[in-house]
Amino acid sequence: MNADLQKERAQATFSVEAMTHFLDGGASKTARRRALEALIAADPIFNNDDNPYMHRTERHVRAVQKFVHLIRLCRAWGIHGKDGEIVLDDDFPTLLAAVADDFPTSLHWVMFVPNLMSLCDEEQQQEWLPLCRDWKMIGCYAQTELGHGSNVRALETTATFQSESEGGMPGGSWIIHSPTITSAKFWPGTLGRTANHAMVIARLVDGQGIDRGIHNFLVPLRSMEDHSLLKGVETGDIGPKIGYNTMDNGYCRFDHVQIPRRNMAMRFASVDETGHYTKKQVSEATSKIAYITMMQVRAYIVNEAGKHLAQACTIATRYSAVRRQGYSSAGEELPILEYKQQQYRLFSMIACSYGFFFTGKQLLHHLQDIQQKLVHHQSVTKQIVADLHASSSALKSFTTMIAANGMEDLRKACGGHGFLQSSGLPELVTTYLQNPTVEGDNHMLPQQVLKVLLKVVQAVSEGNVAAYAACDAYDLVPSLQVLLSGEKETCPASWHVDDLDVHYHAFRHRAAALLIRVAGHLQEHSDQMEQAWNDALLDMAKASAAYAQFLLLRNFLQGIESSSLGPAETAVLKDLSRLFALYWMEQNMGDWLEDGYFTAEHVQQIRTGVLQLLGKIRPNAVALVDARDISDFRLKSALGRYDGNVYPAIMEAARRDPLNQHDIGPGYEHLKKLIVDGVGAYRGPTSRL
Amino acid sequence: MNADLQKERAQATFSVEAMTHFLDGGASKTARRRALEALIAADPIFNNDDNPYMHRTERHVRAVQKFVHLIRLCRAWGIHGKDGEIVLDDDFPTLLAAVADDFPTSLHWVMFVPNLMSLCDEEQQQEWLPLCRDWKMIGCYAQTELGHGSNVRALETTATFQSESEGGMPGGSWIIHSPTITSAKFWPGTLGRTANHAMVIARLVDGQGIDRGIHNFLVPLRSMEDHSLLKGVETGDIGPKIGYNTMDNGYCRFDHVQIPRRNMAMRFASVDETGHYTKKQVSEATSKIAYITMMQVRAYIVNEAGKHLAQACTIATRYSAVRRQGYSSAGEELPILEYKQQQYRLFSMIACSYGFFFTGKQLLHHLQDIQQKLVHHQSVTKQIVADLHASSSALKSFTTMIAANGMEDLRKACGGHGFLQSSGLPELVTTYLQNPTVEGDNHMLPQQVLKVLLKVVQAVSEGNVAAYAACDAYDLVPSLQVLLSGEKETCPASWHVDDLDVHYHAFRHRAAALLIRVAGHLQEHSDQMEQAWNDALLDMAKASAAYAQFLLLRNFLQGIESSSLGPAETAVLKDLSRLFALYWMEQNMGDWLEDGYFTAEHVQQIRTGVLQLLGKIRPNAVALVDARDISDFRLKSALGRYDGNVYPAIMEAARRDPLNQHDIGPGYEHLKKLIVDGVGAYRGPTSRL
Repeated sequence: MNADLQKERAQATFSVEAMTHFLDGGASKTARRRALEALIAADPIFNNDDNPYMHRTERHVRAVQKFVHLIRLCRAWGIHGKDGEIVLDDDFPTLLAAVADDFPTSLHWVMFVPNLMSLCDEEQQQEWLPLCRDWKMIGCYAQTELGHGSNVRALETTATFQSESEGGMPGGSWIIHSPTITSAKFWPGTLGRTANHAMVIARLVDGQGIDRGIHNFLVPLRSMEDHSLLKGVETGDIGPKIGYNTMDNGYCRFDHVQIPRRNMAMRFASVDETGHYTKKQVSEATSKIAYITMMQVRAYIVNEAGKHLAQACTIATRYSAVRRQGYSSAGEELPILEYKQQQYRLFSMIACSYGFFFTGKQLLHHLQDIQQKLVHHQSVTKQIVADLHASSSALKSFTTMIAANGMEDLRKACGGHGFLQSSGLPELVTTYLQNPTVEGDNHMLPQQVLKVLLKVVQAVSEGNVAAYAACDAYDLVPSLQVLLSGEKETCPASWHVDDLDVHYHAFRHRAAALLIRVAGHLQEHSDQMEQAWNDALLDMAKASAAYAQFLLLRNFLQGIESSSLGPAETAVLKDLSRLFALYWMEQNMGDWLEDGYFTAEHVQQIRTGVLQLLGKIRPNAVALVDARDISDFRLKSALGRYDGNVYPAIMEAARRDPLNQHDIGPGYEHLKKLIVDGVGAYRGPTSRL
Repeated sequence: MNADLQKERAQATFSVEAMTHFLDGGASKTARRRALEALIAADPIFNNDDNPYMHRTERHVRAVQKFVHLIRLCRAWGIHGKDGEIVLDDDFPTLLAAVADDFPTSLHWVMFVPNLMSLCDEEQQQEWLPLCRDWKMIGCYAQTELGHGSNVRALETTATFQSESEGGMPGGSWIIHSPTITSAKFWPGTLGRTANHAMVIARLVDGQGIDRGIHNFLVPLRSMEDHSLLKGVETGDIGPKIGYNTMDNGYCRFDHVQIPRRNMAMRFASVDETGHYTKKQVSEATSKIAYITMMQVRAYIVNEAGKHLAQACTIATRYSAVRRQGYSSAGEELPILEYKQQQYRLFSMIACSYGFFFTGKQLLHHLQDIQQKLVHHQSVTKQIVADLHASSSALKSFTTMIAANGMEDLRKACGGHGFLQSSGLPELVTTYLQNPTVEGDNHMLPQQVLKVLLKVVQAVSEGNVAAYAACDAYDLVPSLQVLLSGEKETCPASWHVDDLDVHYHAFRHRAAALLIRVAGHLQEHSDQMEQAWNDALLDMAKASAAYAQFLLLRNFLQGIESSSLGPAETAVLKDLSRLFALYWMEQNMGDWLEDGYFTAEHVQQIRTGVLQLLGKIRPNAVALVDARDISDFRLKSALGRYDGNVYPAIMEAARRDPLNQHDIGPGYEHLKKLIVDGVGAYRGPTSRL
């Protein structure tokens, strides 16, 4: 063990193990996770050491191999639900994280199976889910097209009804077709080489020739016998990406592909043998459950943002305790963790990663709670569903941006060695970069957030907020009321910069004030709404981010309060929540100064407060990342290893590179023409080109 | 040609060709550049189409091949200086840019040859430079070590003198040695597989056993006959990185390698046959020239920041004119360029890329000017040299950060397709990421900047600024004088938000105010300077960035004023400089609000001003990126192509991927065990692990 890290660990003021148990949800969960991680790490098939040196094709093939091996083990270990489904079991996500490599099959359980379960009727589910369970049917979710992303209305793929007499298929059929180049399905994960089925989103044209808008269709792509492409289908991988290269994101073109009528997902609408289209009468609860299933993906992304950020924090913080640079006045080379600027970069992101943990937890619980209410036929208002849409959108947009930018800055904070693949940071960062774009582009989501929150502003101004009582946005109401009544909110001059209650009010104020600015602008220019909306986009982005920060702080504080942690662990978490608050105040200070909420005196105190918090957190820095308990196997980092033996690990990784397999290197074949054969020799003046 | 792009180009208010000539430095330079680019693009050896699909080793080998081919062509075309040196010729940089792929040999001319020329004496140069010219000697610059980056004082590699009687080599010799694992040379470009010589930075231990600090030594690594490693030398490539993977950044360990005494670079110091060390008497001018040569690398980096950013702007802007998303009230799908948020992201970076152009030009001219003065024995004060160090450091730190973050945001602004390697953005972004770290880490440089600028503050407070009259920092003096006298500076209430003069004063004020804040803090805590300095690091970073923004704006405005462009081109550049100013004001508004320079009214006007400028720049957006005249061959982007035929190009690139070479894909070898052989089939309950 590196002596510097030993020293760091010795000075922690709280129990790392207690914090780990808290983060895992209990000591037994920690034990289970560690046991599963140990099984994976010990199995040579799952070895990740050569990942950075492989060609992308090899990476993909290896990842398929790992997945097949994992399923074999899950069957042997009995790791599946009572009916044999693997996806629903608690251990499965733990194993996926333990493998620490992305599976090309993952859209099968992330999107395809949930889609079958929420959009197909009972009979369809009984037919298809057992095939999914047994991995005969491997599916993907084919929505986006080459020319169309999140604008679902613009999708071009068509599904046209044909009666039995027209198409020759008993009971009628659909013709799935890609009419243009821009209508090719493009981007769906698992589609390129792996899936044999796709849930295809297409415009339904019924037997009467009426366009009924987009619906879902289960389209077989490949034979389940030999994986050969079915007639009229063309699929392929879309090529290498900045990250996530084990995954075969795919394209697909349909040339009049015929599928049975009953391959339309028929829970909410159906088409009969004559081509007659019917919207089904389903309970409001049923349709809300389907909607909430979609929101869970966003909640999951928020939760993952904190975990990914924690991984980068672990690498950068441990390395900063080991790496030395610059001299103290005593002539000793200092660990870079001693520098305030490095502390600011690291500790602010540690604070965010813990903050995201509490919000991810709250968001997932909140969703489960609503789902349970719906299942048990309790009433859930449309305000609550819309509110959750706003919260999850604002939080997805903000947390993935901070995680992406933060991980990249943590990579930079490791200096030159952070540029190395063997640091583990490049693949972590670049593969994460999909998150700001998928499931609602971060720059589009604020409009969704504002559409909901502006109604709350409206309700407050009408004095009619009762319907929002159980909503996240309801917590903004006190500030909205003050500001809409034309009064000012200001921070008391006698505040204390460490007072978490003051922070809460400051963030509530700012979110409310920015929201009112947008509302005011739209009202003022309501005669030209399209232009006014466009002009307000920049302010909407600010308001959405401010709202996300408010929710994150609120959940951070409530999460600490409601935890059963001891005083030492609570104290360090409170310091992190303070740093979270003061850090984001400093980053957006103009917002609070512009309307006079803070004065120059406050700002000066915030600046001093940040420096003091950095000093307070300093002795716990390594312990705080240790508490996330990310194993060396999962970190895959020469810089972040638990034992701190950084330099031998970097050197060992370097020596493994294929370019070093032979001395002399493979480029010499060409180089010798220059050095030996004299291609580069000057032979006197030449007339210029 | 895509109709949308055609429409965009038709509405431009200025001459694209005139702007291109201006950026190139004249119509004849544009013509020459285009001619050379055409030669490269037509030669199949330089083809870049398959770059994204190659294994890293293959990329490296191909890049060596390209380089050897380029030198062969340069010899045939007569593209070299009068003595045959290739590096000094104007056409060579143009060819390097035209190839649009990074050469593993590049440290030879970027660092090795300049180092020989500035640090070796006449006799040494006469011996070694012809070998460099003829590409027999291919060199690298070996400074950084595994455990030591920019902290040169801490380097561990030793060069110990041995007399002829001790070492057996006539005239004496050096023993080059790596005593520890952390002393291994690590990171030097070209070192890993390509170079046969290294300029090694090592601690000199003279014949009397005295450590004379770091000096440079020319160490042969490999035979110039067959590239075999010389005795005691171990080199290798350091492995794959986040980007720049054609380059063989290398490591090197020396095990008591003996080299001749005269392989020490002896221009500024020498050691005689007895091991006696002498510092040479050189003119002040000579030592300043050596110092300025080093600063030129930073000036070059600033200049490149603008060019790289322009490349990402070109891709994202053209694509945004073609890509459609969301509907207008008339039911028409809108190009994403219509959205204010997209405009804000794109146009602010177009403004930066133009701004960086003017500053890169100014910085390079300024350096050349000083160099000429020194060569002609005119006096150059130490203040001017230090000032240039501050300016180039502040500008390197700021511009590379903005370029790196900006390019990544432009990649995100292309949505999903920006994640594709075929967009050209991933390699552009990730390879650029070295720049914030190399040649002075962006987070360390502000200390260098402040060390110089704090002396200017001191001089102002002592009323003694005459020595700074020709310095960049002198332009801060009016604000420094006002603020140090205890008076306030404020923006007049009657300002106009478009007034460039007002912008200039606002940025001058902020840079001065932040500088004074640091000075005040250090003065107040001067009894504990080490702690005070550490506590001030965050404010130093702000002050350095504010100073860089001030210089960039100043150079932008001066550059426009002194250009001979017509009124149409001047008008659009002025709008860009306004957007540059207002954008950075908005991003850092707290700084101006805190001390009351701006009021809330000003902020409101700035916000409105930004929206108005976006509207003004809108019709010229595509023309402004067209004017950078980056050919399709250099862009390597399916999204940024000049003709706008984006979708067929993306699809074509996808089809080329090796994963698609055969249907069925190579992963099926494993997948079939799941789908067909039944590894994944559920066979009833199992007892749990």
